[in-house]
Amino acid sequence: MLALTINRIRSMSEENPPVQPVCQPVAAPARRVGSRRRSAARLVWLAWALCGLLPAHAEDGYDLWLRYRPLEAPWAERYRNSVRELVAAPPGTGDAAQTELMRAMVGLLGTTPPISLQVTQDGAIVFGTPRSSVSIARLKLDLTGLGSEGYALQSVMLDGHRATAIAANADAGVIHGVFHLLRLLQTHQPVEHLSLRSSPRVQRRVLDHWDNLDGTVERGYAGASMWDWHKLPGYLAPRYLDYARACASIGINGTVINNVNADALALTPMYLEKIAALAGVFRPYGLKVYVSARFSAPMDIGGLQTADPLDPAVRLWWRQKVDEIYRHIPDFGGLLIKANSEGQPGPQDYGRSHADGANMFATALAPHGGIVMWRAFVYSNNPLEDRTKQAYREFVPLDGQFGKNVLLQVKNGALDFQPREPAHPLFGAMPKTPLMLELQITKEYLGFATHLAYLGPLFQETLDFDTYAQGAGSTVAKVIDGSLHGHSQTGMAGVSNIGTDRNWTGSHFDQANWYAFGRLAWDPGLPARGIAEEWVRMTFSNDARFVDPVIAMMMGSREAVVDYMTPLGLAHLMARGHHYGPGAWQNGGARADWTPPYYHRADAQGIGFDRGAGGSNAVSQYAPPLAAMFNDPERTPEKYLLWFHHLPWDHRMPSGATLWDELAMHYTRGWEYVRQMRKTWADLAPFVDAERYAQVAAFLGIQEKEARWWRDAMLTYFQSISQRPLAPGLTPPEHTLEEYQAMSFPYAPGNPGWTAAPFRR
Amino acid sequence: MLALTINRIRSMSEENPPVQPVCQPVAAPARRVGSRRRSAARLVWLAWALCGLLPAHAEDGYDLWLRYRPLEAPWAERYRNSVRELVAAPPGTGDAAQTELMRAMVGLLGTTPPISLQVTQDGAIVFGTPRSSVSIARLKLDLTGLGSEGYALQSVMLDGHRATAIAANADAGVIHGVFHLLRLLQTHQPVEHLSLRSSPRVQRRVLDHWDNLDGTVERGYAGASMWDWHKLPGYLAPRYLDYARACASIGINGTVINNVNADALALTPMYLEKIAALAGVFRPYGLKVYVSARFSAPMDIGGLQTADPLDPAVRLWWRQKVDEIYRHIPDFGGLLIKANSEGQPGPQDYGRSHADGANMFATALAPHGGIVMWRAFVYSNNPLEDRTKQAYREFVPLDGQFGKNVLLQVKNGALDFQPREPAHPLFGAMPKTPLMLELQITKEYLGFATHLAYLGPLFQETLDFDTYAQGAGSTVAKVIDGSLHGHSQTGMAGVSNIGTDRNWTGSHFDQANWYAFGRLAWDPGLPARGIAEEWVRMTFSNDARFVDPVIAMMMGSREAVVDYMTPLGLAHLMARGHHYGPGAWQNGGARADWTPPYYHRADAQGIGFDRGAGGSNAVSQYAPPLAAMFNDPERTPEKYLLWFHHLPWDHRMPSGATLWDELAMHYTRGWEYVRQMRKTWADLAPFVDAERYAQVAAFLGIQEKEARWWRDAMLTYFQSISQRPLAPGLTPPEHTLEEYQAMSFPYAPGNPGWTAAPFRR
Repeated sequence: MLALTINRIRSMSEENPPVQPVCQPVAAPARRVGSRRRSAARLVWLAWALCGLLPAHAEDGYDLWLRYRPLEAPWAERYRNSVRELVAAPPGTGDAAQTELMRAMVGLLGTTPPISLQVTQDGAIVFGTPRSSVSIARLKLDLTGLGSEGYALQSVMLDGHRATAIAANADAGVIHGVFHLLRLLQTHQPVEHLSLRSSPRVQRRVLDHWDNLDGTVERGYAGASMWDWHKLPGYLAPRYLDYARACASIGINGTVINNVNADALALTPMYLEKIAALAGVFRPYGLKVYVSARFSAPMDIGGLQTADPLDPAVRLWWRQKVDEIYRHIPDFGGLLIKANSEGQPGPQDYGRSHADGANMFATALAPHGGIVMWRAFVYSNNPLEDRTKQAYREFVPLDGQFGKNVLLQVKNGALDFQPREPAHPLFGAMPKTPLMLELQITKEYLGFATHLAYLGPLFQETLDFDTYAQGAGSTVAKVIDGSLHGHSQTGMAGVSNIGTDRNWTGSHFDQANWYAFGRLAWDPGLPARGIAEEWVRMTFSNDARFVDPVIAMMMGSREAVVDYMTPLGLAHLMARGHHYGPGAWQNGGARADWTPPYYHRADAQGIGFDRGAGGSNAVSQYAPPLAAMFNDPERTPEKYLLWFHHLPWDHRMPSGATLWDELAMHYTRGWEYVRQMRKTWADLAPFVDAERYAQVAAFLGIQEKEARWWRDAMLTYFQSISQRPLAPGLTPPEHTLEEYQAMSFPYAPGNPGWTAAPFRR
Repeated sequence: MLALTINRIRSMSEENPPVQPVCQPVAAPARRVGSRRRSAARLVWLAWALCGLLPAHAEDGYDLWLRYRPLEAPWAERYRNSVRELVAAPPGTGDAAQTELMRAMVGLLGTTPPISLQVTQDGAIVFGTPRSSVSIARLKLDLTGLGSEGYALQSVMLDGHRATAIAANADAGVIHGVFHLLRLLQTHQPVEHLSLRSSPRVQRRVLDHWDNLDGTVERGYAGASMWDWHKLPGYLAPRYLDYARACASIGINGTVINNVNADALALTPMYLEKIAALAGVFRPYGLKVYVSARFSAPMDIGGLQTADPLDPAVRLWWRQKVDEIYRHIPDFGGLLIKANSEGQPGPQDYGRSHADGANMFATALAPHGGIVMWRAFVYSNNPLEDRTKQAYREFVPLDGQFGKNVLLQVKNGALDFQPREPAHPLFGAMPKTPLMLELQITKEYLGFATHLAYLGPLFQETLDFDTYAQGAGSTVAKVIDGSLHGHSQTGMAGVSNIGTDRNWTGSHFDQANWYAFGRLAWDPGLPARGIAEEWVRMTFSNDARFVDPVIAMMMGSREAVVDYMTPLGLAHLMARGHHYGPGAWQNGGARADWTPPYYHRADAQGIGFDRGAGGSNAVSQYAPPLAAMFNDPERTPEKYLLWFHHLPWDHRMPSGATLWDELAMHYTRGWEYVRQMRKTWADLAPFVDAERYAQVAAFLGIQEKEARWWRDAMLTYFQSISQRPLAPGLTPPEHTLEEYQAMSFPYAPGNPGWTAAPFRR
């Protein structure tokens, strides 16, 4: 650690690496200040100018994209002219906005602008709602259509002075506007002539935390659960506040606090008190709390003999429970329910439908304005029916039967968060029901925290997927933002990748996936590349010599994972349970559809799952133009080829290669991409602080090793079936199939049935 | 967060709280520097002088007692004259020492002393061994008797210049000496006329991490396990290095990396590679790695059909396994084994003795210089035999039968890490066997992380306990430092309280317990109060207005826990399993001796466990003078009274009160002490940074609530048995016994059988 410090001191005085946070002398900000304030300001200025020389706060990733490190000289100088004073809202409203602005000004510009009651000079920042701020009210900006969360950023004249207005209809909009302005500063955008309006295209933008009450996180790769249940409500960790800030900064407005594999105890008074304490921290940032409810709670904690959703006692119990929740948390968002799925209890236990179940909750929540998020991730253990077809079959007949405040939460694909899947056939197929998109931010199937895989392109691929539900252009984005079928209830959920790790997400680059989810939930039309650029600039550097190669690296990184794990439409080849590493050969066990061979169906003839008309006919669940395309191997996009078709090993691919050779090429290409990322990163060392550089470099080392492991193991295994040689020139696998099969990782993190095995056995 | 920053800026410029790390202008250190170096030094100086004004690294506790924040003016000025240059050891040896010195100088004094090859000016620091440093060799200091870990701190003249020598026989001694010197600076001690020699009285000073391979920590209250097994060996977190620094700074020289309830997988090549990577980080700090071995490993991972310690195949397996360990880790410390205890496998499964088991490991380890730490914490589930007697009965007959490199690891008391126990009767009773003391630093039975309880007095009470084994003065300290019975193998183990929490130990004050353990292991004769003072000064402030009240608060804090949990010799009244909160009424279950009523034995007549001659006769396991004393209620120290005697509720106590009233008084006094601590702390706000102040304040709030819960629940329960009224004036309990009994905390942290229950059931 000291070595770094010393190096840093040296580099500051001798040769300065371009992106090391460079401190620039700044003009003292104050005009209307007395001599005492002026001298304090000068001290701030001096200290700020020299801060880079000190053993300062290490760049350990905790600050996320809200680092607020000193901006480079021309920009800092320029921005300082636009933030000469803050025109305060009255105390109590907009406190969060003002605090964030001040924090950013101190960090980015080394200035503490005076807080005034009205605009007194050029370069004022005016923020608030027409009710909270007299100045905003006097501007009479048109805020119609912005709702309660949108905002306007407008360069204005007020009392003869230039000012920047951040105006909204409600405090939540103000805080979003503040973060937008700060993003402009952090990414070197001009702010002198602003005329921006923004409001979210999706109403409920929530993070689903698969956090258990015992502190573990299902599919979590970033340490333990952030929620320190044992110390709540007595102790509110600073991290809770910083979590709310981070969420607000990217537009996330909801958080489902506990695992969808829910524990009914979360609904007991003891836990409601704890959850209410968290809600209190989140509230100023426009972040609402939701809870996952266990369907059998009336039995688990209510003393009832049934959880039948049509039983009056059960319905009464839930109504009273929901009322109790709202007594604790008046702005509670609603309930998320996983029912009749993977062993969870549900309405079908009583011969009732998913609609019966969801509507029971909807009735209880409606008086309070709460919603039900009902998960569509259901499948029975019937290996004769293609698992990807089952949710469609169960839910499409229920279209129109759900209460108004029910959103059906559908995973991006019909299987389970694979590196690549075609979009779920339910999108577009239930016009009377608002569908909520569920994405997985945590990389359960994409290499956990150590693999660099930017998910922006994956999310965008889903959102841009054309369902043809109302003809061409019926994208998933239009389904979930409500525009295709005219829904006003809309939502997008991301399964969180956040834990107690110092950098929140287990790796620095996984922060980008949290970021991308939030930005896309706000506006599903944003390009993944643009989001990556924002994130890189805020999180690391604005230096083009860093920004450009890192964006390029990120943009191809998810395709690399597809290549080295499951190319050409293959899926679910991961090892059983924890999903760490390859396990394509794993057979047997409790469920056929929890084994890889169920999905790849490799045999002496070929490989792939025949979902065409002659196979499972899953293609028929898509709109006719898609169904026709997916039914034809020649027209099926190569990336989905083996998802829909079982093809001979010698099938001729568009490249001219056989399927077998093409497969080997993809596996090899994925591994090579990671090797290239390592090289790229190594060249970027001068632009990154030492601690973050080292972690990323170490993780890329792990990823390269594991990418090769994936490639070698998969080729070795499939070769044992295809009986074909590897194309000349390809690196032969390191180990034998038996060696790959012998590998075992009982403690790979994130297991759902995580146990302290040593004591138990 | 920003509010703090702003407040801090304000307070710096307006009125300065006395202990807020105050920056003082300092003289530029350099003399022999060129103009470039001089200007760099001036920049460092300026920046350092102003650093307090910036949104700097928050005081979140991560830095422990090695904060190295700027020292107050007169002291900084003074010390700067003693550290004008560092005389370097050759690269590769002493790097850790030099790095630490530089880091501290930058932080404490704002100076980066030049590194020279010989003494060139007054105020040099010369460090190293006679082999690594020419200057040290030339000083010809007498280093005999310092061993490989001791050191001399000596003010010397060299080449006509004043210098401070840190001299040792080996690098480990040098690093210990460096930390001693830094401690002097951090606590405002003079350093101009040093003549100190120090070497450890105990040879193996180890932390036992009860960390499971799945990332959980048994009895851990500070987050998850620090060891990120999944990312090892590919990624070495900076925390590993800082852990080694912290351990070295207090003299800890060993770390048992995994839980005594061991998983045999820790001995597989995959994990040995990971452990070796950790050992590589620790090595420069003189910290050796040890592993907990599962006795049945030859069957679990070796494919053998038995683990019989006399079976040649088993013995061969262990020999080869130990050889393999040493190939990975040449300076491996040894193995810790929990056998035939609480369900763990052991030699008795094969009709062999503990000595047979331990000696098998000893034979395998001896060629490499490794040791066996064999735990004496054994007891059968025979409610007819007093559990506290069983270890003595099992082990005393084995005295003399253990191999030379076996240490028998004995908990401080015969029960299980209670808030108070008399010392274990094994101490002094096995003169031919080196006994190692096992203390519990993690507060399993003392309120977890949120209760402020400084354990220095508890540790000291054990060490000062007179066993009378060789007449008066045969303290436990003399047993375990080997002096009483002439052992050269000596050891002291502390069950770690460290996890992934940002402040390492779950609370700021629990850092003091890690600190105290290390200091006492180095020198069991140090007073708990003096250790507390060192720690407070380094961790918080040297301001007497803070130091004095905080030490006072700490010194009584453990007695307060005794009072509100288990006063007058009571024990094990905690709730079952997790041990969180009171559970004195809990009966039934798998084992009688896992229930509180087994221990308190309250009935209509009275309360307490009769261990006198007429009872279990546990007193007879102590040396005759003690046995006689403990056998007599009138002579038994009040603090052990109900440990040894069952006495009537109306028994007259020395105070004149009845036992019942005395009990109620103690419970009440404990609660009141916590209330007083809250008040004390509230007054200290001006002396502490905001983040640490707030956490301590919140935890004291939790502690007050839980102290009252303990008091009220215990009085309510015992009153239901004693049928006596509370003395007039005592606050009546808040709830009914039924209400206390109905409380349930299935997810209280630290459970040994921790499971993600929601998915499992």
